[in-house]
Amino acid sequence: MKYNGDKLQVTVLGSSHGPAVGAVIEGLPAGIRIDMEQLAALMARRAPGRMALTSTRREADEVEFISGLNSGVTCGAPIHLSIRNKDVRSTDYEALRNIPRPSHADYPARIKYGEDWDGRGGGQFSARMTAPLCAAGGIALQILAARGVHVGAHLAVVGFVEDEAFDAMTVGTEQFKRILANGFPVLDVEKGKEMQQQIAAALEAQDSVGGIVECAAAGLPAGLGGPLFEGIESRLSAALFAIPAVRGVEFGCGFNAARMNGSRHNDPYGIREGRISPLSNNAGGILGGMTTGLPLIVHAAFKPTPSIGQAQRSVDMKNMEEVELRISGRHDACVATRAVPVVEAVTALVLLDLML
Amino acid sequence: MKYNGDKLQVTVLGSSHGPAVGAVIEGLPAGIRIDMEQLAALMARRAPGRMALTSTRREADEVEFISGLNSGVTCGAPIHLSIRNKDVRSTDYEALRNIPRPSHADYPARIKYGEDWDGRGGGQFSARMTAPLCAAGGIALQILAARGVHVGAHLAVVGFVEDEAFDAMTVGTEQFKRILANGFPVLDVEKGKEMQQQIAAALEAQDSVGGIVECAAAGLPAGLGGPLFEGIESRLSAALFAIPAVRGVEFGCGFNAARMNGSRHNDPYGIREGRISPLSNNAGGILGGMTTGLPLIVHAAFKPTPSIGQAQRSVDMKNMEEVELRISGRHDACVATRAVPVVEAVTALVLLDLML
Amino acid sequence: MKYNGDKLQVTVLGSSHGPAVGAVIEGLPAGIRIDMEQLAALMARRAPGRMALTSTRREADEVEFISGLNSGVTCGAPIHLSIRNKDVRSTDYEALRNIPRPSHADYPARIKYGEDWDGRGGGQFSARMTAPLCAAGGIALQILAARGVHVGAHLAVVGFVEDEAFDAMTVGTEQFKRILANGFPVLDVEKGKEMQQQIAAALEAQDSVGGIVECAAAGLPAGLGGPLFEGIESRLSAALFAIPAVRGVEFGCGFNAARMNGSRHNDPYGIREGRISPLSNNAGGILGGMTTGLPLIVHAAFKPTPSIGQAQRSVDMKNMEEVELRISGRHDACVATRAVPVVEAVTALVLLDLML
Amino acid sequence: MKYNGDKLQVTVLGSSHGPAVGAVIEGLPAGIRIDMEQLAALMARRAPGRMALTSTRREADEVEFISGLNSGVTCGAPIHLSIRNKDVRSTDYEALRNIPRPSHADYPARIKYGEDWDGRGGGQFSARMTAPLCAAGGIALQILAARGVHVGAHLAVVGFVEDEAFDAMTVGTEQFKRILANGFPVLDVEKGKEMQQQIAAALEAQDSVGGIVECAAAGLPAGLGGPLFEGIESRLSAALFAIPAVRGVEFGCGFNAARMNGSRHNDPYGIREGRISPLSNNAGGILGGMTTGLPLIVHAAFKPTPSIGQAQRSVDMKNMEEVELRISGRHDACVATRAVPVVEAVTALVLLDLML
Repeated sequence: MKYNGDKLQVTVLGSSHGPAVGAVIEGLPAGIRIDMEQLAALMARRAPGRMALTSTRREADEVEFISGLNSGVTCGAPIHLSIRNKDVRSTDYEALRNIPRPSHADYPARIKYGEDWDGRGGGQFSARMTAPLCAAGGIALQILAARGVHVGAHLAVVGFVEDEAFDAMTVGTEQFKRILANGFPVLDVEKGKEMQQQIAAALEAQDSVGGIVECAAAGLPAGLGGPLFEGIESRLSAALFAIPAVRGVEFGCGFNAARMNGSRHNDPYGIREGRISPLSNNAGGILGGMTTGLPLIVHAAFKPTPSIGQAQRSVDMKNMEEVELRISGRHDACVATRAVPVVEAVTALVLLDLML
Repeated sequence: MKYNGDKLQVTVLGSSHGPAVGAVIEGLPAGIRIDMEQLAALMARRAPGRMALTSTRREADEVEFISGLNSGVTCGAPIHLSIRNKDVRSTDYEALRNIPRPSHADYPARIKYGEDWDGRGGGQFSARMTAPLCAAGGIALQILAARGVHVGAHLAVVGFVEDEAFDAMTVGTEQFKRILANGFPVLDVEKGKEMQQQIAAALEAQDSVGGIVECAAAGLPAGLGGPLFEGIESRLSAALFAIPAVRGVEFGCGFNAARMNGSRHNDPYGIREGRISPLSNNAGGILGGMTTGLPLIVHAAFKPTPSIGQAQRSVDMKNMEEVELRISGRHDACVATRAVPVVEAVTALVLLDLML
Repeated sequence: MKYNGDKLQVTVLGSSHGPAVGAVIEGLPAGIRIDMEQLAALMARRAPGRMALTSTRREADEVEFISGLNSGVTCGAPIHLSIRNKDVRSTDYEALRNIPRPSHADYPARIKYGEDWDGRGGGQFSARMTAPLCAAGGIALQILAARGVHVGAHLAVVGFVEDEAFDAMTVGTEQFKRILANGFPVLDVEKGKEMQQQIAAALEAQDSVGGIVECAAAGLPAGLGGPLFEGIESRLSAALFAIPAVRGVEFGCGFNAARMNGSRHNDPYGIREGRISPLSNNAGGILGGMTTGLPLIVHAAFKPTPSIGQAQRSVDMKNMEEVELRISGRHDACVATRAVPVVEAVTALVLLDLML
Repeated sequence: MKYNGDKLQVTVLGSSHGPAVGAVIEGLPAGIRIDMEQLAALMARRAPGRMALTSTRREADEVEFISGLNSGVTCGAPIHLSIRNKDVRSTDYEALRNIPRPSHADYPARIKYGEDWDGRGGGQFSARMTAPLCAAGGIALQILAARGVHVGAHLAVVGFVEDEAFDAMTVGTEQFKRILANGFPVLDVEKGKEMQQQIAAALEAQDSVGGIVECAAAGLPAGLGGPLFEGIESRLSAALFAIPAVRGVEFGCGFNAARMNGSRHNDPYGIREGRISPLSNNAGGILGGMTTGLPLIVHAAFKPTPSIGQAQRSVDMKNMEEVELRISGRHDACVATRAVPVVEAVTALVLLDLML
C-alpha cells in the first residue's frame, strides 16, 4: 500500500476500523515548514460529515505527527503521520461478515486473504485510506506551491450534470480559489446546485450516483517525465487508480481524441513573449510522457457508491446460499464529491516526486 | 524504459534509428518452450507495411534471441531479444532537427536532454519501441495461454465508427479467433470496412484519425491484485499509458460509470454451477483493485497520429523563428490499428506478473 | 529506512527521542498466528537494562499492533507495529546539539540535513531503531521456524576473547537452545565470563569494546538466491550493514578464504543418505549467490561503542572552535552483546523474503 | 541481474558462452562525452590473457555501443553496450554437464533452474559477467573523475603476502597512478613480485589462491548516504558481493574494529584549514551510513579460484554416483588479480548513483 516514486515514497498505514490510519513519507528534503492550518483545511474538504449529503460518520481527521518534524519543520527523518479512527461502528458490518456487498472489494478480498481478512468497513480497501493519502499529498501541495506549481480540481460531472471545464491554456490559482470559495467544488455555482439535487435525489431513492473530477496543475516546467513507463501518464494514472472507485483516467482530450483528426487535435507551436509554447493544449500539457510547460489536465471517473440502501442480491459464502442484502451503514451518495481534494493530493505527490 | 513488475521486469532497449531495438526480460521461470511461429505471427500483426493503410516502412521485425534460451527453452538466465532496425531513412528527419513536430515528443525531449538528444524518428519515444514490447508481451501471452488465461483485443472505435463491443460475461478465445480471422482487427467485418474508409479518407486529406482499442482477458482466477497502489488498474494503466499515443484508459464501464446510478452499476452476486460469481460485469472484472473471476475489460484511447502531411505551424528552436512545417515521412494514418497487438502484449505482461 | 525485499517490505518508523518507533511489514501471507510470548522473549534479549553491563535506559519494548492482525492472526493488511519510547532523557543531548560526537552519525547527518536535524539520541541513526527491526524480524523468525528453517546467533568475539565457533556442517536448533540457556549469548560459558570481564573493564575505564556476531541458518533448501546482484550475500550484507555499528560482513571462511588455496577451500560433493551434498562447508552454505542446502554461516563485525566517558576532541559547529567533549549518557560498553538478536532478526527477514 | 540504484540502473546482459555479454545503463544525464581510450584501458586491465598467470582465454573485450550515444556523447536514451564473446570453447564444459564443479554455482543453479539451465562456462554466474560491469562502471569512473571524485584499488593480499596499505587520510590520484604504473596492481613492487610467485606456485601445483582487494574513493563530499538500509555500506556491499568469488566486505578498520577499544577506534574532530574534519580515519570515511568527507576505504575478500586442475570429488547428478573430476579449462589461479578494476568499477557505480 505504497506510492513508490523515484524520490518520494508514501506508505499508507492502517485500515478502516482499526485504531488509526496513517502514512509514512520518505524522501522529503529537510528544512521545510509545514503550514498546519492549510493542511487541516484540506483534510476538512475530504472529511465525512462536513458537507451536506455526505456520510454521517464524524471524523475530526486531525493529523498527528509521530516523527519527521522538529518544531513544525521537516528534520530529515521520515515523516510518520497518524489519524485516529474515532467514530467506528463495526456493528454495521457484523451481519455482512460472510455476505459480499455487490461492487465492493469484499468478494475478491475474501478469496485473496481467506477467512482471516478483517473486512469491517472494507478493511484496507476502504475509502477511509484516502485520509492519510490526503494528508501526505497536502504536504506535497504546499511544497509545490512554494515552487510555483499549483494544483486544483473540481467536480466536472455528477450524473447528467456538467460543470464548466477548465480553460486548458489559462487555468491556475484564480480558478482554484473560485472553486474553494464556492463551498461545493465547482466553477459554476448553478451547476453545483443541480449536482447537489442529483445527489439528494439518489439518496432519497436509497441509491447513489457517479461523477468525474477534473484536475489541473499550472506552473510546471517543460521536460519532466520520460519515455515509455517513465511517462507522466503512467506515473499519474497508477496513483489516481489507487483511489478507491476510480474507473477511468484520461489526459488532455482523452477519449475524445479517438474521434478527432490529427489536424484538429495537434497543438502547433509558436513564440509567445519570447518563449516557445504550444498554441493550444489538447495534449493536456503532456507529450511523449513529458510536460510541455502548459497546464497539465487530467480527468478521473468515479463509479457510483456501491453501498446503497436498496435491496440487492448476494450470496452467504458460509452457507453457500443466495440472499437478499440491505446495507444500512453511513455512506456518501456520491463519492466523487469528497474525492476532489484526494485527486489534488495524489496528483501533487506524483508531480513533487518529479520535481525533487 | 522498464516495466517493473513484482516478479517480471522488462527493460526496453534501443531507439528508432539506431542499429536495433530489443528487450531484456527477467523473472521468467526456466523450462518454458517458446513457440517461435506464434511469436512471429504476433509481430507481423504489429509490423509496418503489412496491412493496407499503414506506414510503408518495411521491417521484418524478426526476433533474435541473444541469451536466455537453451534450444528454444527458457534456461533461467534473463532473456535478451533483439530486433534489427533495417529500413531506416534518417534523412527524413534531418530537416526537423531543430523544428519540433506538433504533438510529438520532440519539444519536451529537447528541453529535457538538450542538443545532444538523438531525435531521429522520435528516438526512444518512437512507436518503434512497441516492437520489443510486443515481443516480450508475446512470450507472456504464450505463458498465460498455457495457464488458461487468454488475452485478445480489437479496434472498438476509429473516428466515428464503432465496432460491436465484447460481451463482458462471455468474451474469450472464440471471439479472439474471430477477430484474427477477419484480417482487420474487428468483430464486425462491415464496421471494419467503414473504419478502413475513414482511415483512407484521412490519408487522402493528408490527415490522421484516432481510435480506441478494447482488450479483454478471460480465465483469470479471482483475487489477483491488491489494495491502493497494488490494484490491477494502477498496474495495468501504468503499462498501457507507456504505449505512445495512449491518452485514456478505463476499466469496465469506465467514464460511463460516472453517469450511472449505483443500483444500475452494481453487479449482484449469485451461485452459478455451484460457484459464487457476479451476475453482471459492469466492473470489467475488477473490484477493489482485484480480479473477480469474470473477464477483465479495459479500453485504451489513442490520439490521431501527430505526423500529418498538411502544413503545420512550428518554431525553429535554433533561430527562434516561427516556421511552417510539412512532414513527409512514412506514417500510419491511424496508430490504433497496429496498436491492437501491442495492447494485448502489454496487458499480458502485467497479468503474467500477477500470476507468477 | 526500508528493507525492500522481493516480496517482503519493512519500513522502519520513528526516531530515538520521539514518542515511538515502529515498523510496517508488507508482503506477509494472511492466516499466520503470531506467538506474542515468543516475540516478547526476543525483544527482551535486545532491550536495554536487562543484561548486566548494558545501557541503564529502561524500555519495556512492548510491541503494540496497530493494524494487520485479526485476533492475533495476520489478516492480509500490512502489519503496523509500534513500540513506545518511554525512558527518554533528551537533556543528555542538549549540550551536544552543536558538537558532533566522534564516530557517531552526528557530523555527516548535520551536513546532510542542516540545522533542522533532530539529533537527540542520534535521531533516525540511533541503535534504538533496531527495536522495531527486531520485532519485524521476530515475526519472520517464527514463520521460518514453522517452515523448518531455524536461525540463531552468538557472540563469536569480544575484544580479544573468542567463543567456540559454530560447526558449519551440523549447527542447528540444539546449539541455538544451548546459547539461549546460557543467558549470556555464547556457546562456551567460560568464554562468556571472560567476555563480560572484558566489557566490565572497558566500562570501568570509561571506554568500550567491539565484537563479532556469528549467525547461522539451518534447514534452508538449495537453490535460493540468484546471480550477481540477486545473490544471497548481496541481499544479506545490505540488510546486516543497516544495523548501526556493523563494519564488516563475511560468509563462510570470509576473509580467511583470501589466504587459502583452492584445494583446501573447495567443498567436494558426495552422496549422503541418498542425496547430493557438499562434504564440507567452507562456503558457508552459499555458492554463486545461492544456497547449497548446508547451513548458512555469516559473521558481522561491530565496532566499539562510540559513546565513551573519556574526554574526546571535537568541534563546536556553531562557534567553529575546537572543544573537549565528555559524553555522559547511558550507553552499552559493547553494542555487539545486544546486537545478537538483531542479527538473527535481520537475517530472518532476508531469508523469509527468499522463501515466500 | 541488475544494479538498482536510486537514480542509476545497470542491467547486465548475456552469459558466458552466448554470442555476447552487455549492459544497459539508465539514469545518466545527457551531454556527457565518453573517453573511449580510457574505457578500453580499463577493460584491458580486466581482460583475460593480458597479464601473466591469468586465463589464456583471449577476449578483445571491445565495447560496442548499440544505443545511448550520439557522436560519442550521451543523448538521454539508455546506454546499451555489448561485448562479443569470441574465444568460446564450450567443449570444455560438455563433460561437466551433469557433474557440478566443487565451490562453483553449478549445483545450486541446477537445483534452481532444472535441466534446462545452460551451465557452459558458468552461464550467468560466470566471472565473464564482470566485463560488462567493468564497462558500465568505467563510464561511472569517468563521470566521477570529472566531478573530482577518484576511485582506485590494489591487491592488498594474495595468500600470505600483503601489500602496503592505503594511507586512509591521504590516499588519492597520486597513489592510484603509482599502482597503474606498476603493471601489477600493487603499491609495493617487491610485494607484487612475491604475490606473482605465490600465484605461479599455485598454478604449478594445479591449485589456486585467494586475495583481498583494497579500494579507496577520494574527493567525496560529506553527507552522502543515509540511515539504516540507505547507508553507503549497505549499498556498496550489495554491489561488491555481486562480483563472483567475493566472500567478505569490510569498511575502515572492519573486522579489526571488533578487537579495538572505543578510545582507540574513535576518530576525533578538529578544524583543519578552516574546515571541520575527523583527524583520523578508522571509519573508512563512513559514519552512520554517510560519508564524512575523508577517503572511503573498503576491502573485498576473494576466495581462491574454484576451478583447479587437481582431482576433486563430485557427483554425476544424472546417474547419482560419486565421481572423480579434473577441470581442464583455462582459469586464473587468482581471481583477485583481474578483479581489481572490477572493484573500482562497481564502487564507482554506487558512488555515482549517490552523487547524481
